[in-house]
Amino acid sequence: MTVLSDLLAAVLERGLGAARLGDWSRRPAAELADALITTHGETSGNLLAEQVLAAYKAMDDHARQEFFQHLATEMNVAPDVARAALDAYEAEPSRETYRAYLTASEPPRQELIRRLNQIEGATGALVEMRGDLLRLGRGQPELEALDLDFRHLFRSWFNRGFLVLRHITWKTSADILEKIIAYEAVHAIDSWDDLRRRVQPDDRRCFAFFHPAMPDEPLIFVEVALTRGIPGAVQPLLAKGREELKPELADTAVFYSISNCQSGLAGISFGNSLIKQVAADLASELPGLARFVTLSPIPGLMEWVREAGITAWQGDLAPLAAHYLLNVKRPNGTPRDPVARFHLGNGAMVHALHEDADLSQKGRAGSGGVMVNYLYDLRRTSERHEAFATNGTVAASSGVKSLAGSAQATLNK
Amino acid sequence: MTVLSDLLAAVLERGLGAARLGDWSRRPAAELADALITTHGETSGNLLAEQVLAAYKAMDDHARQEFFQHLATEMNVAPDVARAALDAYEAEPSRETYRAYLTASEPPRQELIRRLNQIEGATGALVEMRGDLLRLGRGQPELEALDLDFRHLFRSWFNRGFLVLRHITWKTSADILEKIIAYEAVHAIDSWDDLRRRVQPDDRRCFAFFHPAMPDEPLIFVEVALTRGIPGAVQPLLAKGREELKPELADTAVFYSISNCQSGLAGISFGNSLIKQVAADLASELPGLARFVTLSPIPGLMEWVREAGITAWQGDLAPLAAHYLLNVKRPNGTPRDPVARFHLGNGAMVHALHEDADLSQKGRAGSGGVMVNYLYDLRRTSERHEAFATNGTVAASSGVKSLAGSAQATLNK
Amino acid sequence: MTVLSDLLAAVLERGLGAARLGDWSRRPAAELADALITTHGETSGNLLAEQVLAAYKAMDDHARQEFFQHLATEMNVAPDVARAALDAYEAEPSRETYRAYLTASEPPRQELIRRLNQIEGATGALVEMRGDLLRLGRGQPELEALDLDFRHLFRSWFNRGFLVLRHITWKTSADILEKIIAYEAVHAIDSWDDLRRRVQPDDRRCFAFFHPAMPDEPLIFVEVALTRGIPGAVQPLLAKGREELKPELADTAVFYSISNCQSGLAGISFGNSLIKQVAADLASELPGLARFVTLSPIPGLMEWVREAGITAWQGDLAPLAAHYLLNVKRPNGTPRDPVARFHLGNGAMVHALHEDADLSQKGRAGSGGVMVNYLYDLRRTSERHEAFATNGTVAASSGVKSLAGSAQATLNK
Amino acid sequence: MTVLSDLLAAVLERGLGAARLGDWSRRPAAELADALITTHGETSGNLLAEQVLAAYKAMDDHARQEFFQHLATEMNVAPDVARAALDAYEAEPSRETYRAYLTASEPPRQELIRRLNQIEGATGALVEMRGDLLRLGRGQPELEALDLDFRHLFRSWFNRGFLVLRHITWKTSADILEKIIAYEAVHAIDSWDDLRRRVQPDDRRCFAFFHPAMPDEPLIFVEVALTRGIPGAVQPLLAKGREELKPELADTAVFYSISNCQSGLAGISFGNSLIKQVAADLASELPGLARFVTLSPIPGLMEWVREAGITAWQGDLAPLAAHYLLNVKRPNGTPRDPVARFHLGNGAMVHALHEDADLSQKGRAGSGGVMVNYLYDLRRTSERHEAFATNGTVAASSGVKSLAGSAQATLNK
Repeated sequence: MTVLSDLLAAVLERGLGAARLGDWSRRPAAELADALITTHGETSGNLLAEQVLAAYKAMDDHARQEFFQHLATEMNVAPDVARAALDAYEAEPSRETYRAYLTASEPPRQELIRRLNQIEGATGALVEMRGDLLRLGRGQPELEALDLDFRHLFRSWFNRGFLVLRHITWKTSADILEKIIAYEAVHAIDSWDDLRRRVQPDDRRCFAFFHPAMPDEPLIFVEVALTRGIPGAVQPLLAKGREELKPELADTAVFYSISNCQSGLAGISFGNSLIKQVAADLASELPGLARFVTLSPIPGLMEWVREAGITAWQGDLAPLAAHYLLNVKRPNGTPRDPVARFHLGNGAMVHALHEDADLSQKGRAGSGGVMVNYLYDLRRTSERHEAFATNGTVAASSGVKSLAGSAQATLNK
Repeated sequence: MTVLSDLLAAVLERGLGAARLGDWSRRPAAELADALITTHGETSGNLLAEQVLAAYKAMDDHARQEFFQHLATEMNVAPDVARAALDAYEAEPSRETYRAYLTASEPPRQELIRRLNQIEGATGALVEMRGDLLRLGRGQPELEALDLDFRHLFRSWFNRGFLVLRHITWKTSADILEKIIAYEAVHAIDSWDDLRRRVQPDDRRCFAFFHPAMPDEPLIFVEVALTRGIPGAVQPLLAKGREELKPELADTAVFYSISNCQSGLAGISFGNSLIKQVAADLASELPGLARFVTLSPIPGLMEWVREAGITAWQGDLAPLAAHYLLNVKRPNGTPRDPVARFHLGNGAMVHALHEDADLSQKGRAGSGGVMVNYLYDLRRTSERHEAFATNGTVAASSGVKSLAGSAQATLNK
Repeated sequence: MTVLSDLLAAVLERGLGAARLGDWSRRPAAELADALITTHGETSGNLLAEQVLAAYKAMDDHARQEFFQHLATEMNVAPDVARAALDAYEAEPSRETYRAYLTASEPPRQELIRRLNQIEGATGALVEMRGDLLRLGRGQPELEALDLDFRHLFRSWFNRGFLVLRHITWKTSADILEKIIAYEAVHAIDSWDDLRRRVQPDDRRCFAFFHPAMPDEPLIFVEVALTRGIPGAVQPLLAKGREELKPELADTAVFYSISNCQSGLAGISFGNSLIKQVAADLASELPGLARFVTLSPIPGLMEWVREAGITAWQGDLAPLAAHYLLNVKRPNGTPRDPVARFHLGNGAMVHALHEDADLSQKGRAGSGGVMVNYLYDLRRTSERHEAFATNGTVAASSGVKSLAGSAQATLNK
Repeated sequence: MTVLSDLLAAVLERGLGAARLGDWSRRPAAELADALITTHGETSGNLLAEQVLAAYKAMDDHARQEFFQHLATEMNVAPDVARAALDAYEAEPSRETYRAYLTASEPPRQELIRRLNQIEGATGALVEMRGDLLRLGRGQPELEALDLDFRHLFRSWFNRGFLVLRHITWKTSADILEKIIAYEAVHAIDSWDDLRRRVQPDDRRCFAFFHPAMPDEPLIFVEVALTRGIPGAVQPLLAKGREELKPELADTAVFYSISNCQSGLAGISFGNSLIKQVAADLASELPGLARFVTLSPIPGLMEWVREAGITAWQGDLAPLAAHYLLNVKRPNGTPRDPVARFHLGNGAMVHALHEDADLSQKGRAGSGGVMVNYLYDLRRTSERHEAFATNGTVAASSGVKSLAGSAQATLNK
């Protein structure tokens, strides 16, 4: 199957004449994109799509920025045309006026992106393209708007129903395992042996979502430790030579790391689905599991401490962290801490705090070494999610609440 | 993985209270759909999506029509809102105004369909739903408009890059083979033995496209015979006890049947891609293949003969068929015959005509027993496609042209 | 990989000269076999092995019989040589004398069969060869002896550790399903629809053993019905339109048919392993299963009735069948009924008898319509097997025992 | 399926009474083995087999030696019994006397090993067992004799027809790749990156044989470099940052490393089959390949130089190496060098010598840094194999012959 494009290109080249194709391949990507959006032929369309992607791949950042600019301005929605089509549809609603409206109201670049996606391997290339766009378009309103079109399409293509959950083990292929090493964002994996300690023992699990059109590229993965009791520190979970636990004896599943793999899929949320599906699968396999908790960093803690001018804090950091998680908000009323927003938004609660729980360089710098357990009670995630989404209610254990209270009292003195 | 929804539903049910869920499940699908479009929670969203699909499945045609009516009217685009968002974006283009415009200009039912597709198995259910819509909505403008939204999303979900080509053989699973039997639209397969004769011999091939989210459902399939020379009749290709040909000795691949399987994917074209990929794969496997032809019916021939009032035709039907294929057009200038439109639109040419080539009941009634070879010359499909799309040029062999000329002369007498 | 032999043959042919190869291929199989047993080269050995198998395949029964005769006489153990090697080893045991003894005491035809098995696809061909031998060699002592060598090697090659259990479903490939239809030996499968009723419903299961070197050939398969209560007749289990049972509600697994597929594997017993593994797997999947029973024919019943001259039997057949199963023995003390020997030898017990339970032609003729449940109590199969093997004890329920007693009383009158 | 033995053990345990099983498990392995050889029940047999293997696994070397001693003496052939059976068969050949002879002439330990092999996973355990036996039994005639029984059975179980060739790539599972790293015997793989350089580039290939009963254990593997021209040194083949060659442009396949993985399969030869199959597969995939050569060490060269007292050699080592390979023989007339014996025995020829070709510590110490290309001409391997096997003829290029001649002349001075 993979030979298709080569073959077609080869036979077409002979037919069309090298000159004509040569012309095409010398034309800039923007021009090719214009041709692609107007062609009616599938064959010529595929050929053009391949050339656009090949041309894009060969570009440097400057040229890519120009290419995005072209899409943003020349392939934007045309307000007058859209308005006229809307008027016509409103005046006389019919299949034809509606079809015209759908076409006119959508910017042509959406159709372009869909056409680029017709060829094999294009999905991954488009995800990378959006990664570039996010990086290069920051602060430029028209490129940020363009990004919304990518995002709109990606939400549709990467919807949950198309994703495949795979258990990552030591029997997984090396090319995927090395991506797990590369993408781990929370607790770096420093060697194949370190990786093995996370995926091979029966009380350590790793799961990832894949998309059928990108079978070698994990989209997101989560690492889980099966334990007795809720752990208060991460290093022991990853230690060499630790004793393994029989999974049937575990009462707790600890989601100690969750990493997004594709920068080009930013804003397309998989974490919630992943955590809930893994929790459900583990609950079904191991009826002894009573609790699903995370062991998470508090990445914004120390930055906030600095910005808030809390210079003379004495004593433990845990009360301060509790206060930060429960009471410190962004202007829109949501928690300042990004990890807190993620888990609370999924319907978890703030369960417990642990000092000196992540002694790595990164853990000290961001979180002051403090880690937090978010608890997923599958019976209550929906309810808590609703309360958080509607009223901003942050669910927390009484212990954490009382810690937060004590910190507030101290700060208010 | 399949237990997820059951499990989540079960645990959630306990958490939310059976009463509340019970309420939901008693609420009509339209109300559930409204709830789904407004919920922010993924978990509650999935639960609602399952209930909508379950409720829909239990409906009779009348209820389904009402449901579609609800989507068509209550979840339609709101012209005033869309216009205001467009004005705001035009006045001050920014990420925020553009986002608001994207949301306002798209009918909410598109978002509804995307949300329904979040759960496992939904894609197939939505394809069936559209099949119902096409059947029930015929002639009702607002339902025909609604269909455009399904089609818009399906074109995106079923784009070529997501499809998987599979070789169907006697080693294929029985559940898929029985669907091949059921869906064969051109030359009916009357038994498992008949099927075997089409997929087991090394000089008979069958290929189908699948979508990863519907792994047991072929979308379209094509049946191919490898022959020496271009055959002029279909029954010998399917005869019991015929002698097999070593594939390496074949010089011609005959696409003698191509069938769409899903009525809910009408208008989402796969045939062109399928024929070209199969042709390319076969060309790569068997370098001796010099020709790719179809052996096709002319389904509209006899109807046209009647309508044209050609009552006293004497002599062969082939010249009349040639004239019909080359010169008889629809008001928009394209050929009247649907199969001709399909293959000419793919860049094929009318190569040869055969009388008494399909002696089945169906073949006689529609095509007067005449069959036609469309020839795919991979080096020229692109060129011919362009000429056909741009100028309506119908490529044909000189033999066929001269047949058409003789018929025209007779008719003009 | 499959091209290997072709390729090697082709390149070797050029190297060795067509003449020489031509000679070989004209030489009779017996001569080729002699060459194979003496060659030291692997390449020439493989070539010879292919030629022997090809030559054998082309033979008629007469030639095959001659070929077997050749193996039986010319490749038999040489008593003098074996005796001398044994003496030498006894006189001075060493690695060398032992090696010489192993070689001399084994008939060369065993080595021949092993060498034939070196090439791809040979295992299946050798199984067929033994099927021929069993058929053609009956009553000829030297061919019956030759068969023991095949059997000796097959017991080693087809040992349980190499077999693979596969669940046969409606998703299994058609080429394997058609073999299930062909090989069903107990209750004939008369169509694909009949087959579907046995493998598709969730309360009907089918399992087969395969060998890795014959991946498309089932060796033995068993058909299972999951039921509530122990059924007393077979036709209702296979009826069209019967109501399905949720597997979790079943308390009984009925092994209603077990069929060997390869006549060439006669005497290599798989049935015991298959029943026990399937029972263990089902017990693990469905904890509600409390009983594993067969619903078996009594194929020798009517023949015995005739031979025993019981002409004036009045009343039910069940007591007579009970007596036959429990008390009628072969000279060596084992039960006369072959199916009884099989299940009792596996450690089952005679549980219940059912009249008019198999109303098919075959069921009436052999079993007088009576069927029997053998019960496998996994906790006691080992114990019962031992008692049966050691003392010939036939385990039976008290009901069956009392039936047998009443028949005996009547017969003794 | 893997739960079978656990389950059966569990249910049987209840049935038989823990006491009895407990007794068994306390009994020494030798006693269990005696029980296994005499049992008639499959279930009890499997249970005993598991216990023997478990008991063996728990033993230290001393206990293992005792266990082997038990098999060697107590389960040896009984000469008197064998002789009597042979006499009886000779006197009256029949199926029965032959069966008795087969049983009596074979040592019971062969049947024991076959019975141990009935349970899942046993094959790998038995291969390890033989590895121990080879290590512990060296120099003890009765254990060396016992080894012949293992070898006899393994030749049958690991015959070519049962083996599966797999292409090892960077997509292969990590657990198999780490075994490739561990087992590489010729040019050590020092890291995952080193491994990647050998299996990921398209001009570097690795192939291994597997047995279906040991699916995670490679038996033997070969590493291949596709090159233009015959390379004279190994380090450039494995260098970081070297330029890749398009496979279609290669004219030479270099087998630069071949490693056996299982010490317990010593003497069961796979290398010949592997090289020939890989050569045939590559020839079929890449028609441009004109030559198949090795790049091999000469591991015995420097040892021979020392032993031969060649202390004052001046000038190049290549002539000396040529002389060593062509003319220095063991008492039985075969080449002294083990690698030469392997390749010449496969039908290869000595093609060229390269000084300073392996600069590793190991390469210098054993081979004086010299490497040799053995050339496989598939058209002539059979012929050369025969000449080597029959007359000891060492095929060599004229260049190598002349080098050897010059060394001989110098040495004879």
